[in-house]
Amino acid sequence: MTLDVGVIGTGMIGQDHIRRLADVLSGARVAAVTDVDTDRARTVADGLSDVRVHPTGQDLIADPGVDAVVVTSWGPTHEQYVLAAIAAGKQVFCEKPLATTREACERIVDAEVAAGRRLVMVGFMRRYDEQYRAMKEVVTSGEIGAPLLMHAAHRNPSVPDHFTSEMIITDSTVHDIDVARWVLGEEIAAVRVLKPRVSSKARPGFNDPLLVLLEMGSGVLVDVEASVNAGFAYDIRGEVVGEDGTVELTESAGVLTKQRGRWSGRVPATWKERFARAFDTEFQAWVDAVAAGGTTGPSAWDGYAATVVCDTGLEALRTGERVPVVLRQRPDLYKEQ
Amino acid sequence: MTLDVGVIGTGMIGQDHIRRLADVLSGARVAAVTDVDTDRARTVADGLSDVRVHPTGQDLIADPGVDAVVVTSWGPTHEQYVLAAIAAGKQVFCEKPLATTREACERIVDAEVAAGRRLVMVGFMRRYDEQYRAMKEVVTSGEIGAPLLMHAAHRNPSVPDHFTSEMIITDSTVHDIDVARWVLGEEIAAVRVLKPRVSSKARPGFNDPLLVLLEMGSGVLVDVEASVNAGFAYDIRGEVVGEDGTVELTESAGVLTKQRGRWSGRVPATWKERFARAFDTEFQAWVDAVAAGGTTGPSAWDGYAATVVCDTGLEALRTGERVPVVLRQRPDLYKEQ
Amino acid sequence: MTLDVGVIGTGMIGQDHIRRLADVLSGARVAAVTDVDTDRARTVADGLSDVRVHPTGQDLIADPGVDAVVVTSWGPTHEQYVLAAIAAGKQVFCEKPLATTREACERIVDAEVAAGRRLVMVGFMRRYDEQYRAMKEVVTSGEIGAPLLMHAAHRNPSVPDHFTSEMIITDSTVHDIDVARWVLGEEIAAVRVLKPRVSSKARPGFNDPLLVLLEMGSGVLVDVEASVNAGFAYDIRGEVVGEDGTVELTESAGVLTKQRGRWSGRVPATWKERFARAFDTEFQAWVDAVAAGGTTGPSAWDGYAATVVCDTGLEALRTGERVPVVLRQRPDLYKEQ
Amino acid sequence: MTLDVGVIGTGMIGQDHIRRLADVLSGARVAAVTDVDTDRARTVADGLSDVRVHPTGQDLIADPGVDAVVVTSWGPTHEQYVLAAIAAGKQVFCEKPLATTREACERIVDAEVAAGRRLVMVGFMRRYDEQYRAMKEVVTSGEIGAPLLMHAAHRNPSVPDHFTSEMIITDSTVHDIDVARWVLGEEIAAVRVLKPRVSSKARPGFNDPLLVLLEMGSGVLVDVEASVNAGFAYDIRGEVVGEDGTVELTESAGVLTKQRGRWSGRVPATWKERFARAFDTEFQAWVDAVAAGGTTGPSAWDGYAATVVCDTGLEALRTGERVPVVLRQRPDLYKEQ
Repeated sequence: MTLDVGVIGTGMIGQDHIRRLADVLSGARVAAVTDVDTDRARTVADGLSDVRVHPTGQDLIADPGVDAVVVTSWGPTHEQYVLAAIAAGKQVFCEKPLATTREACERIVDAEVAAGRRLVMVGFMRRYDEQYRAMKEVVTSGEIGAPLLMHAAHRNPSVPDHFTSEMIITDSTVHDIDVARWVLGEEIAAVRVLKPRVSSKARPGFNDPLLVLLEMGSGVLVDVEASVNAGFAYDIRGEVVGEDGTVELTESAGVLTKQRGRWSGRVPATWKERFARAFDTEFQAWVDAVAAGGTTGPSAWDGYAATVVCDTGLEALRTGERVPVVLRQRPDLYKEQ
Repeated sequence: MTLDVGVIGTGMIGQDHIRRLADVLSGARVAAVTDVDTDRARTVADGLSDVRVHPTGQDLIADPGVDAVVVTSWGPTHEQYVLAAIAAGKQVFCEKPLATTREACERIVDAEVAAGRRLVMVGFMRRYDEQYRAMKEVVTSGEIGAPLLMHAAHRNPSVPDHFTSEMIITDSTVHDIDVARWVLGEEIAAVRVLKPRVSSKARPGFNDPLLVLLEMGSGVLVDVEASVNAGFAYDIRGEVVGEDGTVELTESAGVLTKQRGRWSGRVPATWKERFARAFDTEFQAWVDAVAAGGTTGPSAWDGYAATVVCDTGLEALRTGERVPVVLRQRPDLYKEQ
Repeated sequence: MTLDVGVIGTGMIGQDHIRRLADVLSGARVAAVTDVDTDRARTVADGLSDVRVHPTGQDLIADPGVDAVVVTSWGPTHEQYVLAAIAAGKQVFCEKPLATTREACERIVDAEVAAGRRLVMVGFMRRYDEQYRAMKEVVTSGEIGAPLLMHAAHRNPSVPDHFTSEMIITDSTVHDIDVARWVLGEEIAAVRVLKPRVSSKARPGFNDPLLVLLEMGSGVLVDVEASVNAGFAYDIRGEVVGEDGTVELTESAGVLTKQRGRWSGRVPATWKERFARAFDTEFQAWVDAVAAGGTTGPSAWDGYAATVVCDTGLEALRTGERVPVVLRQRPDLYKEQ
Repeated sequence: MTLDVGVIGTGMIGQDHIRRLADVLSGARVAAVTDVDTDRARTVADGLSDVRVHPTGQDLIADPGVDAVVVTSWGPTHEQYVLAAIAAGKQVFCEKPLATTREACERIVDAEVAAGRRLVMVGFMRRYDEQYRAMKEVVTSGEIGAPLLMHAAHRNPSVPDHFTSEMIITDSTVHDIDVARWVLGEEIAAVRVLKPRVSSKARPGFNDPLLVLLEMGSGVLVDVEASVNAGFAYDIRGEVVGEDGTVELTESAGVLTKQRGRWSGRVPATWKERFARAFDTEFQAWVDAVAAGGTTGPSAWDGYAATVVCDTGLEALRTGERVPVVLRQRPDLYKEQ
């Protein structure tokens, strides 16, 4: 009854998912790992019991002892592993991005449609965060009427030196892009990117923060403040404005303290702190769905749409213009949400 | 020692200021009133004691028993009364707008500069709201570092039938325009107006809500969600995002109740409820300053800048483009804030 | 139309009320002052215009140019001035306590009853605080059902060296005693005082904090945490628990800031900061009521009841027992609240 | 590597723990069950795979295929199963109460001390709630100085007909008793129970709410408002007041909505909703500790102390007096917290 999972990519996020499979979740275990750095894979395997190390992702996918596959390797390699898993008829959980180009995502969608059933889940963990789920529930219930606008902020305390303005869109805002599509239940039609005053904490030549404006198909306008040198905390904000009311994420601290003339509470320091539980819930949902013979959550289509919107955002960042989002037609496989 | 004030315009807002002068404030009284509808002026005067009724604003201004003048008449008439007060060397408090055209505002600025001293205060009452004052204090203190963005929302529950999309800018957003200039301490350089999905509660042909984007001189970007059919309450939001932190207005309810599975608090129902105290504080500040021989608060220049930015906003609304704000040079009289 | 007010006692609180009458309120002025320290009275008078200085409170009350009297002298002297004002048929605003003994309060009540109309208002300013008013409104509306308990905290940052444990009851908790009577609309039937662990910040021999338990006539139980060495702020909390819900005072800060990993807001530093506006509103209400020929707010009966409950509290503090509160019968004059 | 767990008692709470072991937690499975109602045990076993059904708890404990034992049977039966588990040298997780009498708890403590190592964990799940953990962390850090008071409220929406005033102490307040001991890190020295006005929603003869006052060894005073007919929600409040500040549980809603003139958030409806995650965390902690060869969390001593304090509380409820808590000496086995 225990799901034997193979993990491709044993870097930071891969190790975190392996820990989750080994120590936190119910009904799954790590059966095999692989990594471009075989020594690292072997070290990770040595920390567990009874784990095979494969030379390549393809070998791992082919392993008959692997029931399902987790892809946490470098983004540009996602496509080949997801396609191989689909070809092998094995369920695959792929960390975002599904693939780094529109064309690669389309090949995955095509393959899955040809397979005739969903085999891919993409790791947009915010869909499993309790606060975002409560927000979507309120929006869907109709309590606040038809949505008109959505406000969001994605504040990262700091980023590594190799981070670029483009990555603010493809690595940070991509989550808000998925949230907007999911909470509002519709596609994004156009993107604008505005450049506010640059933070003195950003490296020279780095446009940080950005204000990303998403136009949904129905006209709902989403503004996302995205910054990656916020310093003070990892701060995620969100609000949907409807015709009859609004719904917003609350501050997430569990206790309020009073000292030295202030009441105060903690803002999460990192994305790990903020979304730790969402990762657990997401992954358990996948394990349960796979054990039940299917999959769940964000689909290959969601991964495709996110990548296309990010591409569009990069053009909007370059040109300063409003750029329409061009999506292919949504296959029937992805019709039911 | 009591300031004898003459009030030009005894409509709703005029009557509110008259009540304030008569019953709330210290050091002032209503000495004279006038209105285009003389009967209404007379009725208002009859409710007080020892108040003269003048046939015209010019007569009221000329009345030697009037120490200072309040202009609460219809917007297009403001210019002539403010100019007359300046000519008479009398302090004047003018409700917003200072005047309805850029040219009219320039004539007032020119007259005041020629007079060589400030005689005009414009009624941007948010500058006297405790919450906005606390926000400005935090920004000015440097606690949150250099400002990068500002988010605002101006949600009006409903408006009269004659209200238009243009008035969302000139009547509602004008307050956020002044707040942005005042809190951030700089001029607005350009305006964009985006049109989100239209509320089904708006009359046909009415663009509501709007998302107004203000570019400050330094690049700080201000987004203002402005809606006038929000229905659920009069809800004013604001947040400044700096390099080292943020500051935002809190919900303003004094008590939290728990019932039927919810904790909850009151959102103000009207602008009167939300800003009642700010109006009192503003007006007392003016009375005190006039009693001390000068004036205070938002100047004719602030009134001029607001009108120019509104004009620019109307062009931006029409064209869908980013429109630069063109201001004349700031006279020395308005140099010190 | 301007009320000429005479002020007996020009110490800190007296000067604050004088400033209020001179600079803040509408419809009143300071006509005369007196103080046991005549030089201080004269200095205060010199800062204003046209103010008479009287050698004694009795002289001031007798002054035909004094329409109404404010008593802000030392507590033990309150009785004689209030009685003299009643005898003179002049309205009197008396800072708490009405008088320092049960018997003195009874003499005042007797005198006022004999006069046949209310002439005394006692300075329990919390009744004019917006938060407490909203709390009372919720309780009175029936929204939360019949009250069962009330929780309160009165945290003073520090007190002068002469402050004693007894004064925690008579100077601090007295406000919570009045609030309990007023919000719940009934008398206090018994008092217990418990002694928690003593703060290391309290002087030796000083019992601080205290937990004061008030039993209302109906059985509603009120617990008041009272401390005067809280250090961190002036923090006033309150919650009424009813059969169908609860209502509590919110934190009062106008802005929330985020910095260094925390969201935070200001707790007031002093009672002046916390209740500044309540004092203004209270005093204006008195001025307006007196101008209209009567009085308003907390009555001599309220002052009497508060003093009796404080006395009872002192016995409870001494004995550690539950001590019943014994009040005389409430005269008809005080029947209507 | 999977822990084979035997569950004694397959009622509501037993089934919930079985679901947890089967579907939520990592590293454990249900190997055997038993219940006084054998049909119910069999039905529960049928819903799982490969689960043995034993006629008695003793049989289950003796089963060599059972690594560790969960006791979720009726309170009065706890003692015999816990003693049997200790005798068998098997780790046992016992839902509260550890046992229903002081003497029974002492026999368990004696047996465990004789065994020379901890074999018992008691199910006080609040110690695994994120909010309470954050509260304890703040208290322990010294940030708010030495604790002086603690305020708590335990509001249950409703209870079954068989519920009594005594059970408010033994079933509801017992959690606050454990929290006080754990957060403050010391024993309770005395108990008082006060009876506020009775809710009209309570059955005749039922004293609800109660105000339970706990005196800690150091003098810290804890007041617990406990009600079980609160109707509006399941509302758990807590605040520790220290010499330098305070720490309190925040409202736990993830989103704030604005509608019809109110901002609002959800209060949990039931204890399951409020503490769902705490139960998961608690149980995983036990599974992990047992897998590592020991146990963790609340000990038999904690279970003993809670039962003694509850007994003392019942006497205080009966007599209306302050009743001292008499504990035997704490064995060395329980010295390290």
